[in-house]
Amino acid sequence: MQFSCSRKDLANALQIVSKAISSKQQMPILSGIYLKTENNTLELQATDYELGLIVKIQAEIESQGQIVLSGRYLQEVVRKLPGEFVNVTLNHEANIVHIQSDQANFTLLSMNASEFPVIPYFEGNLTFTIKDDILRNLIRKTTFACATDESRPIFTGCYMEVNDTIVTMAATNMHRLAVKNTTFGSSIGNIKIIIPSKALNELQHIMTSEIPTDVHITCSHNKISFSFDNIYMTSRLIEGSFPDYNRVIPRDFATKVEINTQELSAAVDRVSLISRSNEYNVIRFLFTEGQIHISSNNPDIGNAEETVSATVEGPEVNIAFNSKYITDILKIIDAETCFFYLNQSLNPMSVRETGDDTFLYVATPVRTAH
Amino acid sequence: MQFSCSRKDLANALQIVSKAISSKQQMPILSGIYLKTENNTLELQATDYELGLIVKIQAEIESQGQIVLSGRYLQEVVRKLPGEFVNVTLNHEANIVHIQSDQANFTLLSMNASEFPVIPYFEGNLTFTIKDDILRNLIRKTTFACATDESRPIFTGCYMEVNDTIVTMAATNMHRLAVKNTTFGSSIGNIKIIIPSKALNELQHIMTSEIPTDVHITCSHNKISFSFDNIYMTSRLIEGSFPDYNRVIPRDFATKVEINTQELSAAVDRVSLISRSNEYNVIRFLFTEGQIHISSNNPDIGNAEETVSATVEGPEVNIAFNSKYITDILKIIDAETCFFYLNQSLNPMSVRETGDDTFLYVATPVRTAH
Repeated sequence: MQFSCSRKDLANALQIVSKAISSKQQMPILSGIYLKTENNTLELQATDYELGLIVKIQAEIESQGQIVLSGRYLQEVVRKLPGEFVNVTLNHEANIVHIQSDQANFTLLSMNASEFPVIPYFEGNLTFTIKDDILRNLIRKTTFACATDESRPIFTGCYMEVNDTIVTMAATNMHRLAVKNTTFGSSIGNIKIIIPSKALNELQHIMTSEIPTDVHITCSHNKISFSFDNIYMTSRLIEGSFPDYNRVIPRDFATKVEINTQELSAAVDRVSLISRSNEYNVIRFLFTEGQIHISSNNPDIGNAEETVSATVEGPEVNIAFNSKYITDILKIIDAETCFFYLNQSLNPMSVRETGDDTFLYVATPVRTAH
Repeated sequence: MQFSCSRKDLANALQIVSKAISSKQQMPILSGIYLKTENNTLELQATDYELGLIVKIQAEIESQGQIVLSGRYLQEVVRKLPGEFVNVTLNHEANIVHIQSDQANFTLLSMNASEFPVIPYFEGNLTFTIKDDILRNLIRKTTFACATDESRPIFTGCYMEVNDTIVTMAATNMHRLAVKNTTFGSSIGNIKIIIPSKALNELQHIMTSEIPTDVHITCSHNKISFSFDNIYMTSRLIEGSFPDYNRVIPRDFATKVEINTQELSAAVDRVSLISRSNEYNVIRFLFTEGQIHISSNNPDIGNAEETVSATVEGPEVNIAFNSKYITDILKIIDAETCFFYLNQSLNPMSVRETGDDTFLYVATPVRTAH
């Protein structure tokens, strides 16, 4: 095996596939990156069996072959190479790989390529194409609400439901819920799956093209893949059935508050400095005529309070939340203003972004003594 | 106590004094920042008994007084305050401090100000004034060579010797040595002290003025202080006598090598990717006609080699070093070129910066099988 390619292309490809490298010590081969030549293409792969990533780049191939190199070292070496091009040559007998760029020469030990669990391309029951900016938004506006503890695995994933022309994504940790949907021009089928949040977060980071690009998605009941540009990502799905989140969405509300997103975000950020180290990270809101009074209290440190103006329609509401549930949602709202919909202090609050009825957030309040 | 001041000035002052906050849990008062008003000045102090920092800023004082507030919270709160000005008011009976800026209000519990070990200003046996850029250079070119392990405390400090018109700083960990001096127009006295590297590193970070400013230094045999702009830093000294480092400086050499600093630095950076994880971090140099061949080898990973051109006068030398001892020195050389002076593979190497005979670095080689 012998090839040469652009150092920059190789460095970018390594940065992407390395997201799927396993940190588990039990299977050394999974700490490696698999490189395979095919015609005039170099294919790079990494997988931890849950997530798999393939990136293809152009290369000048002298002789075909496949190798597995330590992901960590290969990435660091290529990042620091001096030249514009990289030449890679496998010495078959010695089981070593020579990497040369300008005056720099590296030799890395090759792992046994036949041991690498090569990622299969697959075709699922449901296949559709979506623009990357729309997919990125579906992910960004829901995945943050997933549970982080693994005690109930289904909540560490994002629910995706395809229902004819509508794709809906939803995430919850049982205390908060984020739902976002997008509508297609014609039916694309029907499926209900749960995608691990790790895969969606990585996908969001690698979808960086500046001009909208098509992402081809195909999924079965236990696997999904995303294919765009020179990248192919595959992920196992989380088994189990997602609860009917529609039941927890409040249908009526007594109080409606219109808020300047940035102003409230900055104020909540400050007030939560004090709440952050108390047990439940509690921050209190009093929605009253023309304003929101925000406060937090920590007997060991002190307290904070701030008032921001807002349009409040309906009865006054005094309600407390885990401050993270409020800072998180204010961070992902793109519109200048948003709406909070409330009932009483023990009822969940809904949040909507002005001008976007495809997104909904629900947060459950904290019970506290006033 | 009541005052108001610029938020930016206060945030900057807090950032500086917080460097001296103690992380030791045994003495909670040392986790605090002491604030005292004096005429139209607000003085901030923090100390861990080893290092002390005082910063003064302008303030409008309504009523005089002193308080101690949690350094961590005060710093975070002031950094996030919305307004241009900050109003601070002590509520004496409740032992709390109100901090207000625009619409934001914080209340922080005050610690007992009388428990704070107020930092005394002191006058030592030797006092002199030095420009901050010269002092910064003395520190930058020596302190990196200090020992980091505490087994022999004198080597965790930087030796400073004042000998009439010459101030010399030297640091060593017994395997390498960095020495830099500066000459004054007239005698400033005589003293030999060891300054903790922590104090010098913090000092280097705080000396950020763009136009050269005077630093007033005064020292006794157990204390030193640095005073400049609105900042006063004091540090205890390390007791003990520093070994005569002049004895380890090679006086003669057989081989002289002139090197492009950046080129060698980049090559050593790359080659040491492989050496980094071996036991002694060993990197090998072959200085031969017209070039330096650099290599490293790690049986678990592979090897690296690179050649850079250089002017080599004298016999060929094959020598190995801890790669950190080479990357560190190349990083702090400002000149385009530098000189390596060598004898045989077991003798120390000297390094000098082109055009600067006030700086010298010596590194001891590693014994290895070739």
